[in-house]
Amino acid sequence: MMAISFRGVFPILPTPFLPDESIDVASCGTMVRRMVEFGVDGVTILGVLGEANRLTDSERAEVIEACVEAAAGNVPVVVGASHSGTKASCELAKGAIVKGAGAVMVTPHAEAVPSDDKVRGHICAIADATDAPIVLQDHPGSTGVHMPLDLVLSMVAEVPTIACIKQEALPSPPRVAALKAKLDRPTPILTGLGALYGAFELAAGADGFMTGFAFPEVLAAMVEADADEAFNIHHQYLPLIVFEGQPGVAIRKEIFRRRGLIAYNTVRAPGAGLSQTAAEQLDHLLTQTFTTTDIQQRITPGTANR
Amino acid sequence: MMAISFRGVFPILPTPFLPDESIDVASCGTMVRRMVEFGVDGVTILGVLGEANRLTDSERAEVIEACVEAAAGNVPVVVGASHSGTKASCELAKGAIVKGAGAVMVTPHAEAVPSDDKVRGHICAIADATDAPIVLQDHPGSTGVHMPLDLVLSMVAEVPTIACIKQEALPSPPRVAALKAKLDRPTPILTGLGALYGAFELAAGADGFMTGFAFPEVLAAMVEADADEAFNIHHQYLPLIVFEGQPGVAIRKEIFRRRGLIAYNTVRAPGAGLSQTAAEQLDHLLTQTFTTTDIQQRITPGTANR
Amino acid sequence: MMAISFRGVFPILPTPFLPDESIDVASCGTMVRRMVEFGVDGVTILGVLGEANRLTDSERAEVIEACVEAAAGNVPVVVGASHSGTKASCELAKGAIVKGAGAVMVTPHAEAVPSDDKVRGHICAIADATDAPIVLQDHPGSTGVHMPLDLVLSMVAEVPTIACIKQEALPSPPRVAALKAKLDRPTPILTGLGALYGAFELAAGADGFMTGFAFPEVLAAMVEADADEAFNIHHQYLPLIVFEGQPGVAIRKEIFRRRGLIAYNTVRAPGAGLSQTAAEQLDHLLTQTFTTTDIQQRITPGTANR
Amino acid sequence: MMAISFRGVFPILPTPFLPDESIDVASCGTMVRRMVEFGVDGVTILGVLGEANRLTDSERAEVIEACVEAAAGNVPVVVGASHSGTKASCELAKGAIVKGAGAVMVTPHAEAVPSDDKVRGHICAIADATDAPIVLQDHPGSTGVHMPLDLVLSMVAEVPTIACIKQEALPSPPRVAALKAKLDRPTPILTGLGALYGAFELAAGADGFMTGFAFPEVLAAMVEADADEAFNIHHQYLPLIVFEGQPGVAIRKEIFRRRGLIAYNTVRAPGAGLSQTAAEQLDHLLTQTFTTTDIQQRITPGTANR
Repeated sequence: MMAISFRGVFPILPTPFLPDESIDVASCGTMVRRMVEFGVDGVTILGVLGEANRLTDSERAEVIEACVEAAAGNVPVVVGASHSGTKASCELAKGAIVKGAGAVMVTPHAEAVPSDDKVRGHICAIADATDAPIVLQDHPGSTGVHMPLDLVLSMVAEVPTIACIKQEALPSPPRVAALKAKLDRPTPILTGLGALYGAFELAAGADGFMTGFAFPEVLAAMVEADADEAFNIHHQYLPLIVFEGQPGVAIRKEIFRRRGLIAYNTVRAPGAGLSQTAAEQLDHLLTQTFTTTDIQQRITPGTANR
Repeated sequence: MMAISFRGVFPILPTPFLPDESIDVASCGTMVRRMVEFGVDGVTILGVLGEANRLTDSERAEVIEACVEAAAGNVPVVVGASHSGTKASCELAKGAIVKGAGAVMVTPHAEAVPSDDKVRGHICAIADATDAPIVLQDHPGSTGVHMPLDLVLSMVAEVPTIACIKQEALPSPPRVAALKAKLDRPTPILTGLGALYGAFELAAGADGFMTGFAFPEVLAAMVEADADEAFNIHHQYLPLIVFEGQPGVAIRKEIFRRRGLIAYNTVRAPGAGLSQTAAEQLDHLLTQTFTTTDIQQRITPGTANR
Repeated sequence: MMAISFRGVFPILPTPFLPDESIDVASCGTMVRRMVEFGVDGVTILGVLGEANRLTDSERAEVIEACVEAAAGNVPVVVGASHSGTKASCELAKGAIVKGAGAVMVTPHAEAVPSDDKVRGHICAIADATDAPIVLQDHPGSTGVHMPLDLVLSMVAEVPTIACIKQEALPSPPRVAALKAKLDRPTPILTGLGALYGAFELAAGADGFMTGFAFPEVLAAMVEADADEAFNIHHQYLPLIVFEGQPGVAIRKEIFRRRGLIAYNTVRAPGAGLSQTAAEQLDHLLTQTFTTTDIQQRITPGTANR
Repeated sequence: MMAISFRGVFPILPTPFLPDESIDVASCGTMVRRMVEFGVDGVTILGVLGEANRLTDSERAEVIEACVEAAAGNVPVVVGASHSGTKASCELAKGAIVKGAGAVMVTPHAEAVPSDDKVRGHICAIADATDAPIVLQDHPGSTGVHMPLDLVLSMVAEVPTIACIKQEALPSPPRVAALKAKLDRPTPILTGLGALYGAFELAAGADGFMTGFAFPEVLAAMVEADADEAFNIHHQYLPLIVFEGQPGVAIRKEIFRRRGLIAYNTVRAPGAGLSQTAAEQLDHLLTQTFTTTDIQQRITPGTANR
């Protein structure tokens, strides 16, 4: 299995649907190939943005296969394998690896009575079930699970295959700094949250991004820049980052559509589709942000499109 | 498709696991066949007690097939088909019906922004996807969705295949009474919540039970009795009902095991297994409740085992 | 300050209101004096049942004064002093003690990011603010705070004035047993939850009850009885315990009214009042439970009213 | 009572504390007087940022009196009067008005069983209790109450004293647009959420801001500008807006302190104080945002400090 550095940008991709809400396999391929052209370090599928919680298992498999095939070994495909049951999460993880995933991303699951021991048992069992690298996602906003810092540190110490922490507990910059200071083996930290706090997280020591912002080139430029330039790039795109970060996946899917990455902005019920207000404001915002730049092409932050 | 009356007792069955947490197919068969011998009006699988949220789709299929085969047409098998995505819920429902389910049980799914319209759309879409009878489960305690009475009434009015309401919103007796008073077509109401409020729900007009209490014969006797006798039977078994109703599924699975219905009391992680205290108290409680009655046989409430 | 044993029964009392929702001071006095006649070991006011979260601070003071005066030193008055701010909780605690409370009952407060350290800091600060005995209430169902067992143990070890644990985390019997086994100094454990699991909690080692069930004489009889007799008494009154335990405070207030303890069953908005169904079922249930016994008098479980 | 236009900027002010967490009355005065000098249209106290949930009632009164005195009739003081009990909320509202508040801000309170009717009853009762203008705050993020659009519209139609909607339900721009389109009497809409979506909310029709961002001059400039200029101002300050918007009140209080508005950044327990990371990043961010501009003086967005 290919070693993955987990530094840089691993965009979280939506799951494209046709207007009837069935999987749009062709768009899976287009989207991944274009991401490779954009220079990403990997792609992440079947996360929250991927509406993973609205798919059947066979649909999950379909998406994995299409994306792995399109990645064609050029970049690793990280696959979300979270499930409310430990054994099922193990099965999803193993199934993803068999289909060519380079790593799996997992979260703890909220139980009626929160328990650090239960969280540890859940994560360790998944790690035991496969040799693949594991991205430990810490996103209380979607999971409802608040992992104390010490719990994360001890799991990283205990489980050698935890290869990356996707750090999305708020407030994120001090949490990144604390992890960097206390992790007893070097473990890459990627952040998410739509890159809302991106410049602050990088300044605190984060190694890159694993998030759904539709312009991974912007995030890649931030990772490669020095702190002041990263701040400036972040600042430049911050209205778009904020706008995209509104709840739901419809705005992101619409931008993916406008970039030519997917064919339709269809969101699966009961998720909300694009509002009229959002569509109109997005029109204006993209013009303000990119003026005449063709967003269907790779964006070069900091120069042409200022 | 066999018409189902939805009066009487439709026990919610656990999903039996072997000690390694894999599906115990043999116990699926035993459990269903014994339930038929106990005289139940149907069986319900893949609910919360069935740990449905800890199964992969293929495991779900395995459980359905084993239970439908064991039911052998003697009683209908009601299959839980709830999912956080509408389309996936439709697929689960259709898959269950194809495998021989007599009806499907569905719930709304909690969204970040609660919306009666979204709930309606979700339920109607599932109803549109199949001709099968639908049990509309209203259990805010597990779903987090609080459906106003008027929403339930209007969905029943709009969707002719809603064949039963599984009423578990608290407080349940006044809710049963309100439904009975306002439903514009006769719709059976079964209650759950482990039968904790069973006598009060029957007195308010409920038609029976769809719940996990491990002695459905007791509930059947209550349904057939007059109000005072139903109260007395409920009273007789109330310590057991209360004890069983403690959070988690471990106590119920242990009673199922002691009754010879399943081979092991295994609970899937991250669910909690049987505590030492619960095991000891259950020993004593079963003796207090049944004295010398053999609980592996059908219980006859109200006579031999008082 | 009078030492309090925290063994026996410390009923949680409602806050009586006149029909216009103002404090019914006269009923405060009646209620407390009658409780003393019923033989309780103390009374507890301004808990959840006391609608403490719907009172202004000056109304709280009014209730405390009326109840302390009526207790007249015959039994201690335990006063709820929970607040979402630590300093405010300290002030409420000190104010209660000045007014004659014998102890204060406190809970942790749910913060956006749960933290055992924050919980510890909150409780310790309140303990530092007063010399009075502290009842540490562990009721995740109302507070949303899940304290790990080790946290409770360490706070008891650290704070000598924690004089009692009000144990209401589910499942409660194994939790009581674990506390009893692991507490490094003898600390009374009272349970609540409307006494739903009362016999099981006593069997696991609990020292008594601090709960809202409207017949504290029943609970007192359980505490004094051996295990089998306690089970029998609990069993006898279990339908009433279950019925009273339905959500909201209206049923309890109505029983208090029927017992002549308070003048009106008024519940403060936005709390729900007594439903027609509940009122009718309560009529019937009281007759079934007590036949001709006068519930305005002290009940003697286990003899006259079987 | 002075009529209030509810257009422009009504900053939500923190409650200043001394290092021992007691009320810093002097800073109340300084803060309000400086806000008047900054040209705000009113000030709002005892909201979430004001740690209102960590104050006793008498401390609330102290804060109101100090702020009203400092406002000296130059601008109206809007006072938060939310409470979990309806009658207590009425008392808080009346008490605030008596002390000179120009309006009260109220929210619905989350009940165990959500109910539009209960929300309506709560808000209407408060409106009935006073003649003062009411700001209806719709902030599900802090209240847990999701009011359907129709409920808000009908309350505005029914209650003539609802003088302003503080619109903070997400996503906010389409919600502002929908309110503007459907309100049957002109009702000002102010938005909050730290101004994160400020330019988008103004573009959708909002009338101004009622939020805690520590530079109300920036928001005032946005309100007075045309859409493109408002976008540009918002864009200019967006890193600061994002940074300030991290959970908790510590960063805001620290900026208030650096601006000379309050003497200490003390946060009441169990709230979190300023992290080392946040303090360092704030240093850098203020320099990047304001270069040599003196933030203790009134800021003039769009010119000197670009």
